[in-house]
Amino acid sequence: MWKPDRDDARPLYVQIADYLEQRIAYGDFPPGSVLPSERKLAVQLQVNRSTIIAAFGELRAMGIVESHVGRGTRVSMMKWGAAPRHTPNWSRYAEGGQFLPNLPFMRRIREALAERPGLIDMASGELAGDLAPTEEIATLLKEHDYTAYLGYDNPQGSLPLRQAVAEYLLRHRGIRTTESSILITSGSQQSLYLITQCLLSPGEAVAIEDPSYCYSLPLFQSAGLRLFRLPVDEGGVNPEDILELYRKHRIKAVFLNPNYQNPTGAVLSDERRKRVLELAGELGLPIIEDDPFSLTSYGDMPPSPLKSIDQAGTVLYIGSFSKIAASGLRVGWMVAPHAIVERLADARQQMDFGLSILPQLVAGQFLRSEHFAPHLDRLRTSLQFKRDLLIEAMDKELRGLVEFEAPSGGLHLWCRLLPEVPEGKLLEESIAAGTVFVPGSVYGSDKGYARFTFARPKEEDIAPGVACFARALRSLI
Amino acid sequence: MWKPDRDDARPLYVQIADYLEQRIAYGDFPPGSVLPSERKLAVQLQVNRSTIIAAFGELRAMGIVESHVGRGTRVSMMKWGAAPRHTPNWSRYAEGGQFLPNLPFMRRIREALAERPGLIDMASGELAGDLAPTEEIATLLKEHDYTAYLGYDNPQGSLPLRQAVAEYLLRHRGIRTTESSILITSGSQQSLYLITQCLLSPGEAVAIEDPSYCYSLPLFQSAGLRLFRLPVDEGGVNPEDILELYRKHRIKAVFLNPNYQNPTGAVLSDERRKRVLELAGELGLPIIEDDPFSLTSYGDMPPSPLKSIDQAGTVLYIGSFSKIAASGLRVGWMVAPHAIVERLADARQQMDFGLSILPQLVAGQFLRSEHFAPHLDRLRTSLQFKRDLLIEAMDKELRGLVEFEAPSGGLHLWCRLLPEVPEGKLLEESIAAGTVFVPGSVYGSDKGYARFTFARPKEEDIAPGVACFARALRSLI
Ligand SMILES: Cc1ncc(COP(=O)(O)O)c(C=O)c1O
Ligand SMILES: Cc1ncc(COP(=O)(O)O)c(C=O)c1O
Repeated sequence: MWKPDRDDARPLYVQIADYLEQRIAYGDFPPGSVLPSERKLAVQLQVNRSTIIAAFGELRAMGIVESHVGRGTRVSMMKWGAAPRHTPNWSRYAEGGQFLPNLPFMRRIREALAERPGLIDMASGELAGDLAPTEEIATLLKEHDYTAYLGYDNPQGSLPLRQAVAEYLLRHRGIRTTESSILITSGSQQSLYLITQCLLSPGEAVAIEDPSYCYSLPLFQSAGLRLFRLPVDEGGVNPEDILELYRKHRIKAVFLNPNYQNPTGAVLSDERRKRVLELAGELGLPIIEDDPFSLTSYGDMPPSPLKSIDQAGTVLYIGSFSKIAASGLRVGWMVAPHAIVERLADARQQMDFGLSILPQLVAGQFLRSEHFAPHLDRLRTSLQFKRDLLIEAMDKELRGLVEFEAPSGGLHLWCRLLPEVPEGKLLEESIAAGTVFVPGSVYGSDKGYARFTFARPKEEDIAPGVACFARALRSLI
Repeated sequence: MWKPDRDDARPLYVQIADYLEQRIAYGDFPPGSVLPSERKLAVQLQVNRSTIIAAFGELRAMGIVESHVGRGTRVSMMKWGAAPRHTPNWSRYAEGGQFLPNLPFMRRIREALAERPGLIDMASGELAGDLAPTEEIATLLKEHDYTAYLGYDNPQGSLPLRQAVAEYLLRHRGIRTTESSILITSGSQQSLYLITQCLLSPGEAVAIEDPSYCYSLPLFQSAGLRLFRLPVDEGGVNPEDILELYRKHRIKAVFLNPNYQNPTGAVLSDERRKRVLELAGELGLPIIEDDPFSLTSYGDMPPSPLKSIDQAGTVLYIGSFSKIAASGLRVGWMVAPHAIVERLADARQQMDFGLSILPQLVAGQFLRSEHFAPHLDRLRTSLQFKRDLLIEAMDKELRGLVEFEAPSGGLHLWCRLLPEVPEGKLLEESIAAGTVFVPGSVYGSDKGYARFTFARPKEEDIAPGVACFARALRSLI
């Protein structure tokens, strides 16, 4: 990101005006488009708002932009002289298509994180850098030869990785499968995208957990699906609710995250697991089992996945490297009946021609390497330690103000906030105080909940992060 | 891919029956699903068809499968006893959703290539392994430290790669842009997917070249777009045709591949370039400029892209690593106005959370390394040499039977076949004779054309490949 140079002889506002003029000339902001707001640019370029106002004044004087109260600053349509009579109305194009924009709270969080490097991040649902197997992966890259053929590969995923995943699934998740039933994806996100876009049709009804990560994904709405909710308690969803939704709405699929559910941390009880499968068998209803967190289990072995006891082939199983290794690798997998794997691989071909071969090679080697088991041990110990740090800080700073169950796996703590405060205000105050979390409504929950990710911040930032949040909360009571 | 073991004491048909039983037990072929045909399995497992028939007999005897004439062999619904009353009707799910399956000819070609390792591949539109910078990339991987943070990255693409692409675009394509106007994608394919899905709405009209690579992409139809064609001659499309389509059908975008067009090799003439931009400006009509081949130019510098002379911001520019380095890396880029980049990055977030960080780091380093320029020189020389080998073989084997223009860049030779023969038959005969090409109708052309990719086969396979094709063609005259 460009920043003005404080050692430059030219005043800051002139540098900024020159920079914007250049971006406009490059077509980055075509005639008629709106420039970022003064406030936003001031934060981005780390200058006072008055400097931005002066820079906009320069551009206006040159006839390059026009400002109208309430409509922001626009690139002048006149700028290019008579030559191009019209520029495409890009903002209309940006609003077209089938994708809904991401949720406002999630956008605001990303924006805040991008603008303020010091912000303590308890919002991003991922591992801190020091929990990822960065050294191990760097070592693998140095040790192995990557002179493999770099042509278009099978859109189903590279064969060595599918074989490694099949071994991994048997050893770590008790799932018996073969490489031909596995589809490699760009993380669980893409698995969910493929399922919602390619296997379900607009207007069809599906069931998702409430609260749930799925609810935070506009992709369900983008696919035109009707969403029905399955309330989650300590023991996960209630199977009889599935039956009821099926009777009432002919749901076509059920999305579950049975182990250390995001955001609640709930684990689907054994009894309910059996009943869910029984029902799915009776109704011929596909279950999408999203299982990214199981190997983070702090204490005992995590419960077996539905897929491992699914005899009727009703379960589509989704796994990912993101929460147990590194989200930036973008490697995930799906286990599904042959016809489904073929169909999705075919759709994949149209979307992106499959995953880059490089992360696939590395992921396959890592899964099979002697580094994998010790990495998992270290990960589980650190996550439990960080969970305890967060709970300790909550007890110290927020006693009587929050309630929660300590999760036994996963990356998050799900809190009920006892004082009634407006969510948006609380988020803004937190950002101002120096930390971000995710408001519960993002996951479709009732008012008054929040998700804190202890996996993401550094150990030493957890207590200060909670202190910032506590200040924000208290300021609104 | 599993194969029966000829040293195993058990007969082949028993091994195959056991293997299929296992895959059925794993849910890979759920109750009610259809097994691959006897013919297909025989080719895949490299056994006689009678062996498959015997294996199916075994499974039938065990009550695991049922065969009905004309309906293939299905997994028995009874197999699981009374427990699961219904399995999801997976084939219904596989037919749902918004994606059309890939074109039958393309599926057939991929299938043939997967089944017969010896087939000479003049169909896949990509570089041969020895033209890719495999050594250079392996060296970069060994030299550099990949201890970067592996968390979720900016869905717009990693900053160092966007900077490297901005420099590359200025130096090699005369395009002035900044990193904030660049979106990194999983190749041009994903760029086209994002544009058709996110910027255009179902029912809208767009113009594509005829013949054209776009026509081979079911993604245009999957997005529900109405396609109108712009005939391509030696000088590319005729700008006045664009005007006419705009008047008649209110087309919302024009997709062009101005340099070394796929499949024809045509180059849009200078005069027409100017007129296209003029029209686009007048009509406020976005031009999608797909430019994957320019740096393969054999002789002179390739013509400048439309984007480099686009002053009104009407051009969305698409580039890729696939045809100048390695398609398996899956790295491409798009240059677009700010509002569009933001919108697409947001959609990206829903689809796959962006590209894996690893290929992005490598691609950025390669673009900036001292290896890049020599690689391009070597690539251009080899491509020209392989083009000449193909033309020589055509002259020898097919004189009087084909007509073509020698392309001055790109990977393909576009041929008119003078004898009238049915395309499907010609493809099957070619496969039987030992080579594959792409029938012209895949690109929407009139009957009697074929695309031969000289970049893909090994040098020593080009003449034999043409000989195989010639045999196939002659057998049908
Ligand atoms: C339950 C669940 N599913 C899927 C995902 C997507 O993860 P990825 O695409 O990185 O594998 C997440 C990430 O937060 C998640 O919590
Ligand atoms: C004109 C054109 N555009 C786009 C593509 C897609 O290439 P990739 O997605 O590998 O960049 C191709 C590949 O054949 C092509 O020929």
